[in-house]
Amino acid sequence: MTPGPGIQHDVRMSGFVERKSFAEVWKIIQDRIRPGEAESTSLRDACDRVLAEDVVSPVAVPCFDRSAMDGYAVLAEETSGASDYNPLEFQVIGEAYPGRAFEGRAGPGQAVKVMTGAAIPDGANAVMMAEYAEAEASRVRFRRQVTPGKNIMRAGEDVARGDVVLARGRRLRPQDIGVLASVHRPAVLAYRSPTVAVLITGNELVEPGQAADGTCIVDSNSYVIGGLVRRYGGIPMHREILPDRAETIRAAIRECREDLVVVSGGSSVGEEDYAPGIVRELGELVVHGVAIKPGSPFGLGFIDGRAVFLLPGSPVAAMVTADAFVGSAIRRKLGLDVGFAYPRLRCRLLQKVVSAIGRTEFVRVHLHEDFTVEKLRVSGSSILTSTTRADGFLVIDDAIEGYPEGSMVDVYRYGS
Amino acid sequence: MTPGPGIQHDVRMSGFVERKSFAEVWKIIQDRIRPGEAESTSLRDACDRVLAEDVVSPVAVPCFDRSAMDGYAVLAEETSGASDYNPLEFQVIGEAYPGRAFEGRAGPGQAVKVMTGAAIPDGANAVMMAEYAEAEASRVRFRRQVTPGKNIMRAGEDVARGDVVLARGRRLRPQDIGVLASVHRPAVLAYRSPTVAVLITGNELVEPGQAADGTCIVDSNSYVIGGLVRRYGGIPMHREILPDRAETIRAAIRECREDLVVVSGGSSVGEEDYAPGIVRELGELVVHGVAIKPGSPFGLGFIDGRAVFLLPGSPVAAMVTADAFVGSAIRRKLGLDVGFAYPRLRCRLLQKVVSAIGRTEFVRVHLHEDFTVEKLRVSGSSILTSTTRADGFLVIDDAIEGYPEGSMVDVYRYGS
Repeated sequence: MTPGPGIQHDVRMSGFVERKSFAEVWKIIQDRIRPGEAESTSLRDACDRVLAEDVVSPVAVPCFDRSAMDGYAVLAEETSGASDYNPLEFQVIGEAYPGRAFEGRAGPGQAVKVMTGAAIPDGANAVMMAEYAEAEASRVRFRRQVTPGKNIMRAGEDVARGDVVLARGRRLRPQDIGVLASVHRPAVLAYRSPTVAVLITGNELVEPGQAADGTCIVDSNSYVIGGLVRRYGGIPMHREILPDRAETIRAAIRECREDLVVVSGGSSVGEEDYAPGIVRELGELVVHGVAIKPGSPFGLGFIDGRAVFLLPGSPVAAMVTADAFVGSAIRRKLGLDVGFAYPRLRCRLLQKVVSAIGRTEFVRVHLHEDFTVEKLRVSGSSILTSTTRADGFLVIDDAIEGYPEGSMVDVYRYGS
Repeated sequence: MTPGPGIQHDVRMSGFVERKSFAEVWKIIQDRIRPGEAESTSLRDACDRVLAEDVVSPVAVPCFDRSAMDGYAVLAEETSGASDYNPLEFQVIGEAYPGRAFEGRAGPGQAVKVMTGAAIPDGANAVMMAEYAEAEASRVRFRRQVTPGKNIMRAGEDVARGDVVLARGRRLRPQDIGVLASVHRPAVLAYRSPTVAVLITGNELVEPGQAADGTCIVDSNSYVIGGLVRRYGGIPMHREILPDRAETIRAAIRECREDLVVVSGGSSVGEEDYAPGIVRELGELVVHGVAIKPGSPFGLGFIDGRAVFLLPGSPVAAMVTADAFVGSAIRRKLGLDVGFAYPRLRCRLLQKVVSAIGRTEFVRVHLHEDFTVEKLRVSGSSILTSTTRADGFLVIDDAIEGYPEGSMVDVYRYGS
């Protein structure tokens, strides 16, 4: 694309030697960032963690035939012909409760009273519901016939011994933890949550609440990046804000021992943009400049095998690149593929949205109750409140010029 | 509805004096459970918490006019007529960087070099992009004219002083925390996460991994309920498993000091179902029996103003009622309305789904990539693995008999 006065974005980016596409950066992250170690994790801490093993059940669940109803356990064949007009009488020889089995055996003409969840006694193969039985002292009359297996939950009906109940790569849900408990696993192997160093650079930045002279602004990026790191399953490790000095930034990057390093600010090609040169000097700068909007002054390098992400300082650009690239790197460390942490919805666009071919655009949208969406009006990459007013975003591929009004589009939804 | 042999569910439920509808139970929770206290919460811990105040910005963001580009700050009017054929020359009298303002004033014929984010010096009202400028020593020639305000981010453009940036009831997202930082709030008032006592009853229950004789089963409900409590924003407080003995359960319920109490198991009308009677004895049993499937043997009462939830012991029924009712109670404690914690998607049903009028049904479904769904084949209320195989569920209102094939339905999606 030839830079020209009408295409400010590309004019600004003329300083980048080679802009990668969004898909190329995702492919680099997918290929070069490998899953981290696994660690034993107790069930009470396992929710939302990612499973690092296939869990094979050593047991059947339930491990015995259970009654699915309150009623009477009998040999089904003996109830043949029972009806309202021809009730058949049995002797009640005992009771079975959950956790308290009847130890004897039901013989001919005999039944055992059972509660839901109780073990089916030997000699019985069906449960007559209490509603079709009339009990009187130790006798009971059945007004229905039952077939073998009726009202019985068979051993192994939930889980068979040897079943893979949950597979590696599963982000564990509450019900998954229940299933892990039910197959007698007090702990599982889960991927260790990756640590992420969050380095914020900028002479103009202060902490919230800190007295500031008239030309300082508050660092918001560390809060947004920290929250996103947690959302994707990582652990953010914050530092003091760094001044725009090459030697300070270099030292801070070199000292990082976290699994991933994020540097916010100074990622472009301006005078005080030191980070790209430092990564090139200490390791390999694989990406510098990406054909996305917002977020084009993004860089990605590797130092001693550790991925270093260079995020633009502009708040919306920092958020978009943290979401798309740092988030995907955390997912890779957790054994997952690159992707977003947000639910994907199919929505109808209320107005056309235009985009430039050759650039992937992230468009913040309002989402209505009826699954229609419209583009937010204010969307400058410095307007952080545009990300709080938005309900989500859509991604316009670099191969298309946008979408006409009425198109069905995929929307990633913030919040739940 | 008249119980009859074809309607097993209703026959079983005949022991309930008055079954409430799903909507009635939600209304009781909405009306009777009040938001809890608020507490000051530092920004680093505020993600996913619910805001208990309207946050009004005491400042404008940014609080000064900033350059949106690298270039030269000038008085726009002085660039009038500049073009490639008629470049206009200015004197460069200084530089401004982010956090390092130029202290002087730009007079006639003068410009100040500015980097993106730097304060606009006095006397200037626009920024000429570097691409349209040719600098040589302390002189610069402009090849374009600019209008007042060009390439300047105005003070207050992101947030105006006095703006409500986020409102009470907001579940805080990473970007929200960034905005709170940017308006100088190091902490906010958030609703205190409610504590939830989780009492599991059942003689047959053991802990995962614990040696068990042939008719015991592992307690999975405490894990599922605990995970759901966290998902909705509460803090689960677990106890030892309780035997089915009225005095033990009574003592355990009375001792609870948590904001909410959940008792799993023994919630129905059978011999060993002690919990409903205990709640009636100690306080008020408002709900006993709900017209839902699964989960009908659900109860809700209040003891000394504390809500006590009685969940069926059957794993799927326990999960559904914890999701729908305990989850909604946690939401109320957090100042939110009753509802589910899952993203809602609009999907197309691949086959018809039938349901009984007079009963709200929760149907577990498979969700495909193209937003079509189909009902899970196995769905007994004891089959916990049906909830791990499912990708989500749909709720069939008690006023309809189900949905024909091809219907568009709302699906609540597990996981993200």
